[in-house]
Amino acid sequence: MIFDLVISGGKLVTASTTYTSDIGINGETIAAIGEGLQGKEVIDARGKLVIPGAIDPHVHLEMPVGDTFSADDWASGTLAAACGGVTTVIDFVEPEPDEVLIAALQKRLESAKGKAVIDYGLHMTLRNDHPDTLNQIPAVVAEGCPSFKTYLTYEGFALSDKAFLNVLEAVGKARGMVLVHAENDAIVSYCTRQMIEKGKTSPGAHALARPAIAEMAAIQNSLAHAEVTGTPLYIVHISTAGGTSALEAAHLRGITAYGETCPQYLTLTEDKYDLPNFEGAKYVCSPPLRQKNDQETLWRGLAKGVLQTVGSDHCPFNFNGQKDKGRDSFVNIPPGLPGIEIRLALLFTFGVKKGHISINRWVDCCASSPARLFGLYPRKGHLIPGADADIVIFDPDKEIVVTKAVLHERVDYTPYEGIKLQGYPVMTILRGKSLVIENEYIGTAAHGQFLKRQVYQ
Amino acid sequence: MIFDLVISGGKLVTASTTYTSDIGINGETIAAIGEGLQGKEVIDARGKLVIPGAIDPHVHLEMPVGDTFSADDWASGTLAAACGGVTTVIDFVEPEPDEVLIAALQKRLESAKGKAVIDYGLHMTLRNDHPDTLNQIPAVVAEGCPSFKTYLTYEGFALSDKAFLNVLEAVGKARGMVLVHAENDAIVSYCTRQMIEKGKTSPGAHALARPAIAEMAAIQNSLAHAEVTGTPLYIVHISTAGGTSALEAAHLRGITAYGETCPQYLTLTEDKYDLPNFEGAKYVCSPPLRQKNDQETLWRGLAKGVLQTVGSDHCPFNFNGQKDKGRDSFVNIPPGLPGIEIRLALLFTFGVKKGHISINRWVDCCASSPARLFGLYPRKGHLIPGADADIVIFDPDKEIVVTKAVLHERVDYTPYEGIKLQGYPVMTILRGKSLVIENEYIGTAAHGQFLKRQVYQ
Amino acid sequence: MIFDLVISGGKLVTASTTYTSDIGINGETIAAIGEGLQGKEVIDARGKLVIPGAIDPHVHLEMPVGDTFSADDWASGTLAAACGGVTTVIDFVEPEPDEVLIAALQKRLESAKGKAVIDYGLHMTLRNDHPDTLNQIPAVVAEGCPSFKTYLTYEGFALSDKAFLNVLEAVGKARGMVLVHAENDAIVSYCTRQMIEKGKTSPGAHALARPAIAEMAAIQNSLAHAEVTGTPLYIVHISTAGGTSALEAAHLRGITAYGETCPQYLTLTEDKYDLPNFEGAKYVCSPPLRQKNDQETLWRGLAKGVLQTVGSDHCPFNFNGQKDKGRDSFVNIPPGLPGIEIRLALLFTFGVKKGHISINRWVDCCASSPARLFGLYPRKGHLIPGADADIVIFDPDKEIVVTKAVLHERVDYTPYEGIKLQGYPVMTILRGKSLVIENEYIGTAAHGQFLKRQVYQ
Amino acid sequence: MIFDLVISGGKLVTASTTYTSDIGINGETIAAIGEGLQGKEVIDARGKLVIPGAIDPHVHLEMPVGDTFSADDWASGTLAAACGGVTTVIDFVEPEPDEVLIAALQKRLESAKGKAVIDYGLHMTLRNDHPDTLNQIPAVVAEGCPSFKTYLTYEGFALSDKAFLNVLEAVGKARGMVLVHAENDAIVSYCTRQMIEKGKTSPGAHALARPAIAEMAAIQNSLAHAEVTGTPLYIVHISTAGGTSALEAAHLRGITAYGETCPQYLTLTEDKYDLPNFEGAKYVCSPPLRQKNDQETLWRGLAKGVLQTVGSDHCPFNFNGQKDKGRDSFVNIPPGLPGIEIRLALLFTFGVKKGHISINRWVDCCASSPARLFGLYPRKGHLIPGADADIVIFDPDKEIVVTKAVLHERVDYTPYEGIKLQGYPVMTILRGKSLVIENEYIGTAAHGQFLKRQVYQ
Repeated sequence: MIFDLVISGGKLVTASTTYTSDIGINGETIAAIGEGLQGKEVIDARGKLVIPGAIDPHVHLEMPVGDTFSADDWASGTLAAACGGVTTVIDFVEPEPDEVLIAALQKRLESAKGKAVIDYGLHMTLRNDHPDTLNQIPAVVAEGCPSFKTYLTYEGFALSDKAFLNVLEAVGKARGMVLVHAENDAIVSYCTRQMIEKGKTSPGAHALARPAIAEMAAIQNSLAHAEVTGTPLYIVHISTAGGTSALEAAHLRGITAYGETCPQYLTLTEDKYDLPNFEGAKYVCSPPLRQKNDQETLWRGLAKGVLQTVGSDHCPFNFNGQKDKGRDSFVNIPPGLPGIEIRLALLFTFGVKKGHISINRWVDCCASSPARLFGLYPRKGHLIPGADADIVIFDPDKEIVVTKAVLHERVDYTPYEGIKLQGYPVMTILRGKSLVIENEYIGTAAHGQFLKRQVYQ
Repeated sequence: MIFDLVISGGKLVTASTTYTSDIGINGETIAAIGEGLQGKEVIDARGKLVIPGAIDPHVHLEMPVGDTFSADDWASGTLAAACGGVTTVIDFVEPEPDEVLIAALQKRLESAKGKAVIDYGLHMTLRNDHPDTLNQIPAVVAEGCPSFKTYLTYEGFALSDKAFLNVLEAVGKARGMVLVHAENDAIVSYCTRQMIEKGKTSPGAHALARPAIAEMAAIQNSLAHAEVTGTPLYIVHISTAGGTSALEAAHLRGITAYGETCPQYLTLTEDKYDLPNFEGAKYVCSPPLRQKNDQETLWRGLAKGVLQTVGSDHCPFNFNGQKDKGRDSFVNIPPGLPGIEIRLALLFTFGVKKGHISINRWVDCCASSPARLFGLYPRKGHLIPGADADIVIFDPDKEIVVTKAVLHERVDYTPYEGIKLQGYPVMTILRGKSLVIENEYIGTAAHGQFLKRQVYQ
Repeated sequence: MIFDLVISGGKLVTASTTYTSDIGINGETIAAIGEGLQGKEVIDARGKLVIPGAIDPHVHLEMPVGDTFSADDWASGTLAAACGGVTTVIDFVEPEPDEVLIAALQKRLESAKGKAVIDYGLHMTLRNDHPDTLNQIPAVVAEGCPSFKTYLTYEGFALSDKAFLNVLEAVGKARGMVLVHAENDAIVSYCTRQMIEKGKTSPGAHALARPAIAEMAAIQNSLAHAEVTGTPLYIVHISTAGGTSALEAAHLRGITAYGETCPQYLTLTEDKYDLPNFEGAKYVCSPPLRQKNDQETLWRGLAKGVLQTVGSDHCPFNFNGQKDKGRDSFVNIPPGLPGIEIRLALLFTFGVKKGHISINRWVDCCASSPARLFGLYPRKGHLIPGADADIVIFDPDKEIVVTKAVLHERVDYTPYEGIKLQGYPVMTILRGKSLVIENEYIGTAAHGQFLKRQVYQ
Repeated sequence: MIFDLVISGGKLVTASTTYTSDIGINGETIAAIGEGLQGKEVIDARGKLVIPGAIDPHVHLEMPVGDTFSADDWASGTLAAACGGVTTVIDFVEPEPDEVLIAALQKRLESAKGKAVIDYGLHMTLRNDHPDTLNQIPAVVAEGCPSFKTYLTYEGFALSDKAFLNVLEAVGKARGMVLVHAENDAIVSYCTRQMIEKGKTSPGAHALARPAIAEMAAIQNSLAHAEVTGTPLYIVHISTAGGTSALEAAHLRGITAYGETCPQYLTLTEDKYDLPNFEGAKYVCSPPLRQKNDQETLWRGLAKGVLQTVGSDHCPFNFNGQKDKGRDSFVNIPPGLPGIEIRLALLFTFGVKKGHISINRWVDCCASSPARLFGLYPRKGHLIPGADADIVIFDPDKEIVVTKAVLHERVDYTPYEGIKLQGYPVMTILRGKSLVIENEYIGTAAHGQFLKRQVYQ
């Protein structure tokens, strides 16, 4: 058998194993894993790592925030992702308050069509628990979006306990999963008001306005609610030791719950907010950066399986023209960091190389677990016959110094400026086609497909 | 010096000590503790325990609940209390939604005047966080009511997180304390609805409709809020192991929080709900009775100081005419148990005699800690010179079988029917005057005084 | 390419994935995974599960215990294992007190040679921390035995804290792992003595003589020691909720530690000890069977990754002639249960079918994690090219009632008599050769090989 | 009635209450507490605090340590104690390995007779669990020493788990209490050896040689043992957050256990070990000083009742001639700090004034709880009729800067040099006789009595 394409001699790294083998690809799909495979085209991967294309379960492209939008659109954002070794992103549908969910989904699909260079799925955001809204959930699931984002904070989004419970019930019945942004809105509002009343308006006040206890309280509370309905719960962007411990405690109580953290919480700390010249604004995200102790617990949580995934929560805003709208007060800084491109490489350098996590756990957190939890597995996130040939060749020895110029994200800064990385993707293949070689995008058209995802299992 | 009254030769039991001494009383006050005191009148207390009059920090007399009232009024309820060794109760002002707090307080004071045979204080219930409401808090504190009751459940009462935080802040600024009925309203509503949808309407469904997780979630959440404002928090009627553990965890985090439990949670379990002939309704209270394991943890919590007080949550309803309005559905059973009279004796038999708590801890939970936490100490709750001569003589050897007939509560049943007690009060003295001798009320007029309480210290 | 053997059309189940594919085998090794593979011989696995051969990391064959031996020898025990879907066992070298470790290893290897029908590894038991002993550790590791068993109880075996710490240090330096039987010897001895003094000598006293606190204390203590040296620690046969929680708490402290439990702790409870006619003796093992609550926590621990593996701790003794030596006193009952044959099927029925664990976690606990932790991975425990062709075909629909007659273990009873199983292995392949078909052993010679295992990674 | 002595108008502070009253004393005993008492002699205490004489439950006077002795003898040590407001100390009998316990007790009593200026009790140290030793326990209890000190570390003292359990059992049967110095000896030995092997011999290595995990492990383990026998356990000098949490966790498990901490752990941190010129040696004690985080948890533990007492663990060694014997290596520095004189004042300034504990908790930790736990209560540790007239008048406004010269301890330095205190004792009365006025000892003879203490209740 002659395969269309063979990736030859690389070290295959999956969530569970590291071994050397060839991969035979026919069309868009992996057809065989084995030794001595022959192909019409052969890529020599000796000395390199061959991993499943990374899955970013948490990105915000073209996202409306107040009167502005996150800086990357579907085209620029997915191109940057591809350069960073990502072959699938899951973004969000953010319906207007009274919009029909399916209509909002269609609109969102339109916005991506012809622009996304990699595959993509969509989580559906639920802003209320109106019967009209809840009744649409099965239809949304049927369209391939079985994961529903909820917020416990932000005006116009924050669900009350009752609404959250109703959403949990309805999503659970439809065999879906609920994602939750877990910060206690009352605590955040209160502490924000305290800051303002004290005249503390610089970026440094941002962390105090959203204290760790706001996250822990919301996580404890949402876990209790999930326990009542039995619906799987996915807690996005966990940033604190207290939140991690709360999730851990839920596990032996038998609650089905998962935790995501982000590269920024694993590699940066809150002292960034004190940078001069308003530079702290570049690090304003919600929840905010935390302390060294939180970082250590997050790494341990990832290593031991208390946390399952790392998402980027990519939500970039330009320093000039967007972030700087908050010079008068941190509350006007649009919250969010870029990170879609550099997640995989950051986790390799700061996770694998530093000894926090194994190389298999790296693949698991960045690809396999996101795929599994969100109904894409094992079509995505794994290297097995029958899976999409979404493959990244990663050079573990390639050294790079991060600068704005190196990255393809359409935003005027990177929070990781100057950081040295060891290990970087050198080829990204989507469904059998090379998209990126040596940090250069070589794709000719936007072939990204919308992924209809399976229900939670 | 010849005292007006000397209590001679008894074994004095306080929260911290047991010793034999005389007590010399002049007028309404203890004037001296010492040996060989001489009095115009002498009560021989040899062989008896002499303890501070019990303080019940949690009673509901003449309380409106829907279209009915709790069965005891100020006269009958305080008389029963006195017979049980209680010399002070703290009841509640329950303002109408838009009522001026001070006006409601005045009305409530009117209702007690000339009827209460023992002293009494009042907690102020807050049903909302309107600025108008919060602005009245200092005035209420100034009137001697520095403790504010909040509910996290019950329609028309349940505070949102934001309202609760605003209340905490306002009460904290006024140097008061917040009491909280901690059951998560969303979980209770959800589970209640589940019961109804499944056609489970007997009293047995009551416990399932208000599961333990509803209490634990609300306690965790309210502790987080109290941590933010630093306001002292008093959690009423804790019924679960999970709630007790949550409070314990808060202590080493440095949160100022206290826990109360009730005799029913210490001595009864949820199997009572399955009694035939609708008898389960007699045990319907909120939170509901729990399991053996919860009981054990509550006793340990009391013994080790995780929990501080035992209140009766006395809220009696007649089986005939009140409880039986819920024959069609448990949701129509007015929730509440009688207990104002028997708390001290129950705790002695099931706590001290069974070895769960020391005799000093018994006095502490039933008298001293309620007095201290609620600004009455050491005027009440202790045996020292200068304190009010509120004294109970308790015969540790007196045996009694509890029946409706033995008790003075104005309600047509007792949940403790048939229970054998060892130890019972034999004399109750209020500010130097004997009110009760051998379970017979001998008071001639209602001398109970309203107590203006001190702020939290 | 024509493979020697193709397993066709089965549902492949690995620790991380379930998918349908063919497996191509050349010689003893998997050569390819892919679609439409062609083979000289083809096994049709449609409708069946195809899983990696199970690995039992904890068995005791021909083990001397006092003046007797465990009832299965290398021949009978490995044959039974093969029938149950096991292709690798890891047994123990138990040196005499002053025996040279390598000499003991050689002797043990001799005893297995020509008898074991499946592959096998050996853990080395360390009975002391004499420098002479510790100095031999690198040589033992070099021989392929990088895992060292320690006991904290049992006369002649129990290590003191100091000895345990020295062993941890020495093993850690040699890049090995320490296994620990964690029961606090002092507590066990004390409670055993209590039972004897009270005349409680029936099997029912066994559980009281080895209380749960003995396990929790030993686990807490051994984790603290492992934290000091940083050596990986593997806690065998965890049986209690308290022990599981102690391990969980260690994870977020950053300790490298793993937990094993056994089928008996997951499926049986201590009430078995009260069976009449001395039948309780059939369930005497150390640690003893526990309570329902412990079982639930163990399942949750397995599901969430607090516990990693399930070993059988197969250590069978005949009821007649061995167990019955303890009719006078439970202390004379040789402790141990059979279980080498039925582990995989028990876990499928009681774990997967009951919904406690996923089908992938089942493979992980029974095959992949044991292989990984003990240096056999991915040669064993996985289905990938390059791995040994150790494969089990498992029929998820085959129903069986367990009886002594169904099993091949050489012991006169099974603790699982009468239990109904759904799902059973129907073919066991070792390195490309079929050993068992439909519960009948068809092997012609004992081809089992000693496995030199890799150091811990 | 005219009393021999009246202390008039002071603010009485007990473990539970603060109130203004007179105290009437006849002979050595408090005869009455009341208003307007008349005395032959009257001490005006207006504006001052009047508290029970402090009890130091943990001191080492004339203690042999290797070839030297702790620097204070019974005369100098008790005089210093008196100046600091202490009226009772409990020291230790440290028998030789084979010495008859009662004989050692008699010898120890001889050494104190005619020298101790305040009252004293003795704990009995148990160095082994020989039946001969254990058999003597009832006799020791009968002599008034119902508390037995055990060590889990130190050569010649460290008890094995078995010995510790036997001691717990024997002491429990005799209705006594076990004190435990809880550091895991194996961990301490191992870490000490590590330091030496790395050539780290300065005082700075002391803290690393006795890490926090050594204390937590020993506390967890000793609590498990106490759970088995049910014997009350008193954990001396807890220094870590982990140890405090372990004790807290035991409370809701129902274990009878108490915790002591010391002023040095509450007010100093491990950075002291890095002082130049070998000054770090002045702070070498075991367990060592810890970190800020530990301090905070200890304060919270004291405030919330997780910890019950503060003992000084007074064990002074001169810097010149004793501490400096360890210039070559920290292992030769005799471990111990002075603190007998300043405990009460340190706790007032750093505990009460800083808001960590209430003024009543201060009295409780320093006087009442030690008295209660060790069988002296309420004869000592309280202000009630019938109690010994051991009274301290404490001026809450007196400011003092601590220097060697201010103190009366017979040691050539103080670890608190230069610290500013607000509040200091101004009069110490022992059984009705003034011993100290304004930091000057005015006693004429050594009237200290040996206290036969009651068994644990």
